[in-house]
Amino acid sequence: MNEAALWAARQNKKEVELVDFEMAKDKVLMGAERKSMILSDEEKRITAYHEAGHALMAKLLPGTDPVHKVTIIPRGRALGVTMQLPTDDRHNYSKEFLYNTLAILMGGRVAEELVLKNITTGAGNDLERATDLARKMVCEWGMSDKLGPLTFGRKEEEIFLGREIATKRDFSEQVAVEIDDEIKRLVGENYERAKRLLTEHMRSLKALAEALLEKEVLDAPEIDQILLQSSSQTVPA
Amino acid sequence: MNEAALWAARQNKKEVELVDFEMAKDKVLMGAERKSMILSDEEKRITAYHEAGHALMAKLLPGTDPVHKVTIIPRGRALGVTMQLPTDDRHNYSKEFLYNTLAILMGGRVAEELVLKNITTGAGNDLERATDLARKMVCEWGMSDKLGPLTFGRKEEEIFLGREIATKRDFSEQVAVEIDDEIKRLVGENYERAKRLLTEHMRSLKALAEALLEKEVLDAPEIDQILLQSSSQTVPA
Amino acid sequence: MNEAALWAARQNKKEVELVDFEMAKDKVLMGAERKSMILSDEEKRITAYHEAGHALMAKLLPGTDPVHKVTIIPRGRALGVTMQLPTDDRHNYSKEFLYNTLAILMGGRVAEELVLKNITTGAGNDLERATDLARKMVCEWGMSDKLGPLTFGRKEEEIFLGREIATKRDFSEQVAVEIDDEIKRLVGENYERAKRLLTEHMRSLKALAEALLEKEVLDAPEIDQILLQSSSQTVPA
Amino acid sequence: MNEAALWAARQNKKEVELVDFEMAKDKVLMGAERKSMILSDEEKRITAYHEAGHALMAKLLPGTDPVHKVTIIPRGRALGVTMQLPTDDRHNYSKEFLYNTLAILMGGRVAEELVLKNITTGAGNDLERATDLARKMVCEWGMSDKLGPLTFGRKEEEIFLGREIATKRDFSEQVAVEIDDEIKRLVGENYERAKRLLTEHMRSLKALAEALLEKEVLDAPEIDQILLQSSSQTVPA
Amino acid sequence: MNEAALWAARQNKKEVELVDFEMAKDKVLMGAERKSMILSDEEKRITAYHEAGHALMAKLLPGTDPVHKVTIIPRGRALGVTMQLPTDDRHNYSKEFLYNTLAILMGGRVAEELVLKNITTGAGNDLERATDLARKMVCEWGMSDKLGPLTFGRKEEEIFLGREIATKRDFSEQVAVEIDDEIKRLVGENYERAKRLLTEHMRSLKALAEALLEKEVLDAPEIDQILLQSSSQTVPA
Amino acid sequence: MNEAALWAARQNKKEVELVDFEMAKDKVLMGAERKSMILSDEEKRITAYHEAGHALMAKLLPGTDPVHKVTIIPRGRALGVTMQLPTDDRHNYSKEFLYNTLAILMGGRVAEELVLKNITTGAGNDLERATDLARKMVCEWGMSDKLGPLTFGRKEEEIFLGREIATKRDFSEQVAVEIDDEIKRLVGENYERAKRLLTEHMRSLKALAEALLEKEVLDAPEIDQILLQSSSQTVPA
Repeated sequence: MNEAALWAARQNKKEVELVDFEMAKDKVLMGAERKSMILSDEEKRITAYHEAGHALMAKLLPGTDPVHKVTIIPRGRALGVTMQLPTDDRHNYSKEFLYNTLAILMGGRVAEELVLKNITTGAGNDLERATDLARKMVCEWGMSDKLGPLTFGRKEEEIFLGREIATKRDFSEQVAVEIDDEIKRLVGENYERAKRLLTEHMRSLKALAEALLEKEVLDAPEIDQILLQSSSQTVPA
Repeated sequence: MNEAALWAARQNKKEVELVDFEMAKDKVLMGAERKSMILSDEEKRITAYHEAGHALMAKLLPGTDPVHKVTIIPRGRALGVTMQLPTDDRHNYSKEFLYNTLAILMGGRVAEELVLKNITTGAGNDLERATDLARKMVCEWGMSDKLGPLTFGRKEEEIFLGREIATKRDFSEQVAVEIDDEIKRLVGENYERAKRLLTEHMRSLKALAEALLEKEVLDAPEIDQILLQSSSQTVPA
Repeated sequence: MNEAALWAARQNKKEVELVDFEMAKDKVLMGAERKSMILSDEEKRITAYHEAGHALMAKLLPGTDPVHKVTIIPRGRALGVTMQLPTDDRHNYSKEFLYNTLAILMGGRVAEELVLKNITTGAGNDLERATDLARKMVCEWGMSDKLGPLTFGRKEEEIFLGREIATKRDFSEQVAVEIDDEIKRLVGENYERAKRLLTEHMRSLKALAEALLEKEVLDAPEIDQILLQSSSQTVPA
Repeated sequence: MNEAALWAARQNKKEVELVDFEMAKDKVLMGAERKSMILSDEEKRITAYHEAGHALMAKLLPGTDPVHKVTIIPRGRALGVTMQLPTDDRHNYSKEFLYNTLAILMGGRVAEELVLKNITTGAGNDLERATDLARKMVCEWGMSDKLGPLTFGRKEEEIFLGREIATKRDFSEQVAVEIDDEIKRLVGENYERAKRLLTEHMRSLKALAEALLEKEVLDAPEIDQILLQSSSQTVPA
Repeated sequence: MNEAALWAARQNKKEVELVDFEMAKDKVLMGAERKSMILSDEEKRITAYHEAGHALMAKLLPGTDPVHKVTIIPRGRALGVTMQLPTDDRHNYSKEFLYNTLAILMGGRVAEELVLKNITTGAGNDLERATDLARKMVCEWGMSDKLGPLTFGRKEEEIFLGREIATKRDFSEQVAVEIDDEIKRLVGENYERAKRLLTEHMRSLKALAEALLEKEVLDAPEIDQILLQSSSQTVPA
Repeated sequence: MNEAALWAARQNKKEVELVDFEMAKDKVLMGAERKSMILSDEEKRITAYHEAGHALMAKLLPGTDPVHKVTIIPRGRALGVTMQLPTDDRHNYSKEFLYNTLAILMGGRVAEELVLKNITTGAGNDLERATDLARKMVCEWGMSDKLGPLTFGRKEEEIFLGREIATKRDFSEQVAVEIDDEIKRLVGENYERAKRLLTEHMRSLKALAEALLEKEVLDAPEIDQILLQSSSQTVPA
């Protein structure tokens, strides 16, 4: 609300309009736009395919949060953003939802690899989040059949600062190997899944990326229309 | 007492009544109710089966503390609570009591898995408590025949803060493997035990969960009546 | 002396009597009595057998300190206490004395197991002390033939506090395995020894435990009389 | 701008000229010149071949940043500097670009080895940067097929100082071995690549080094001319 | 000098005599006498044989420092002391001297074992010193042929306190095993050497110990006389 | 300059002479003389052979810094000093120079072993420096073919003190074993090299050591003359 009022004021408006709220929501959720950051055409193209990869995976997998907007205007430290908005507040997450989230996170890197035949450092943050998520599935939520319904690693709070600093390893090297194997399997399976799905829907991936390069921002209805057109084109082919 | 007086005052009562004490006891033992937290129907259903799983296991296993109340009204950070009240103060715990406690802790996750065919992050805290308990049985109370009547891991207090921060590993990797194996065995055996028992008493599990979805809170007599009805129904089947 | 004077004053006595000194000595050596702590009959029975196990082992093993008193009145954090008083100050301890001490420490858990067919968390402190003692025999006093006349683990003092916090591991994993094996052997041998001796003297164990349940405190002459009677009974059997 | 103004002032100029900006840019990018540091003829020769090795590798590999200047006048802590200037700001880096960077970093040591038949401590910083870069490729950017699209090693910030101090190892020894193997492979492949390329272009390497010994600084046009001449000489040979 | 003057003053002497200097030297080198500490006859006997073991080893091994005094009057935290005085200040120590020192340190425990057929905690400090010395021979002074002329373990000073706290392990587990083996070999060889020598000179060992039990303190000439008598007795036997 | 002026002032000179500068240089480079420290004849002999070993190795190996002076007058914490002065400032060091430095460091211990048939703790500092140097060759300067052109061990600065405290191990146990093997090989090869060279030039070693025992200090021309005489003597033998 604050952000919306500030935005409206900066535009010399007397009233806060719906469009001001939209601007404010985007800023809070995705970081401030950084229009001053200049990307080369090559970087724009990579970013467009990367974000299109995330967005398409999110559209293809059932039970994941709806895609609200995709953009290749740099925001915060990211060159592009795919924004998903949950339909209602979740308090717990099912194993299926988390497994699909891994596939969405892989979608960016996979799109770069499939179309541009090269990979970049831009996926670093996605990989870190996927690894962390897979580790939590195995070590905190008992979602690996191999390791069973136990937790691994004791959290330790440095109390003089009131903040958790370290997760202490409280298991043997043998278990550490099993944890590593399971994390690798969870992420690896979803990398392959993203590869298979994006290859099958290559036409949609390219349509989304090219539209992003042209418009820089796509909202939900625009994404739906592009996917509808590109997949209907697929049928006759 | 304090909480009860405060509660009565907030209701504009002139005297503290029995119902105020009950409210106060629940708040102290289970955390404050959070009626403002809105659960989706899906989450309510998961929570109801999860809590019904805990409660039914507690009823089925001999020598465990009586179930006092079950609720799917969020309290503190939990979406639901199963409250057991000991009949008298225990100072020490028998191996059998602890072994059964592991099975009760597993009951929630197992109920989700059996009925809803999916598992969620909601069992994370149960798994952590079960792992900690199994570790204590093995490492502090000498309750593993394989590791014998010894203790493992020296506690270290950061004296300048008067609080224990770390348990230092004072054993070899070989022993670490044996400890991991025993913890996994203890928790795993009780996961299987919960699966077997809840499968056998599926009718009761469903009856409890459905009643919870309807009433949101069940006290001891209500639970007993539901179990009586559902199990008597089982007989003719 | 102080404690005795305080005790006498609290009883409104004008002079400090012998009985006041006895009260004071017990308080200093075993912690203050906690008569307000209420044990269930089950816990009293477990405690009685546990303490009887310690006391009987101490009586059966030569060269250990004489048993001064046994009680199942909670004192400090313990539900019961077996108090041994050395006949003179020892400055060093022989390997034999320490080996017997391990057997006495095992006596409590073994008695629970033999008679009540269940074990409890109550032996946790005994197991910790036995493990620590066995570790010192191996790592500080060169009493393991396998590891030889060396010491293992360097003590490190956090000098800014003038207190030892950590023993740093200064040996290889291979030696760590040998140390673990030796500690397990020392404690395990004495667990078996306690089992053998208490089984042989089961009649005395039961007589001691039942007397404790009846009187709550037994002094040295009472213990001697009970053992005399129960073992003489054993002969004709 | 500041540095340029200061420089012009120190030369008693009334206006800041283009040459002052060039001096300022070099100082900011490469550190201040240290003309007072006296190198022996032997060290000058080693430095000339070392820098020529870097520069030639950068010229030979496609897609790397253009070489702006090479010098054997000591700057900061370096005895010589090869300066590359990107044509536009990069925000992400492709795997190919990073792989080539490893080869450029190896170029210095390889040139010493090939021509002078001895190696020196002067390459220490290059090796450290190459090792760090290869580690990031494997552990942060998922650029090793063997280890897959995951990240390894959790960053930990010492929050009371607001600076990252430690990367905590959160993987098993088995993964540590695979990481070491991949880092060694990435650096090793590029060492061999630098060896092969510099051997093929030995005539150019020597021409660059000898020109550096004579002029101490070479700018982009001078480098291009030397390479043109030396490689055209190569053809008839 | 200070201590001597203080001692003389305490005796109400007007001048400091030779005997006062002797008292002062003993106090500085061996700690203050603790005549108030009462040893049982058993402990006195153990202590006498323990110290006789040290003293006899020191007399039997060539090139070690001369034995100045042996006593079983408790001093500081020790129940007895064997004091060796170097003939001149040493700045470096030969491998042979250190090897013999290990044998002297073993002499106390070995004497207990040979004569009293039991070992005590009293040798703990000797074992710690022997282990430390053997570790230094291997890790700091390159005196193990197996590990060679290298050092192992980097010292780290906590600079804010100006004191060394930790020796950081900077070697592999494989080297840790070799170090452990060499330390065990060095100490073990000298344990066997002490056993062989004290068994051969049992008559002298007993003579020394019995004289200590009688007189409590033996100075160098007394020790020499006892050894002369006991070994001459040995001859005719 | 300061030291020279201070020295001249202490001698009541009005002008600073060349000899004052020499005194000052020695003090700065080798520590202050400690004429008050009294060495036994045995220690003097050991020190003379130790320093002669260093000096002779330095003379025999090509490309090392010239020997400026050798002395057995204690300076700082050293019982003797061999001082090498570089002909010009080196900024980088070749692998060959470092390899020879290892042999010079070994020369002291080897001389003791060859001539006196015993080794002492006096070489401890040489061994530590050699181990550190060999580790740097392998871990910082990529001078081991086996480990390749990489660096091992990340330096970590405790930033609140601005000083490096720890090198963090960032490699697997497998690499740790390879590093240990290479460090041992580098030092071991040079120990053998020193043994071979000093055995071949035994006559020169003895001549240098005896001259040191006689004169306590030898400067460069004196050393040269001794070596000339002793090696010419060698020819006829």
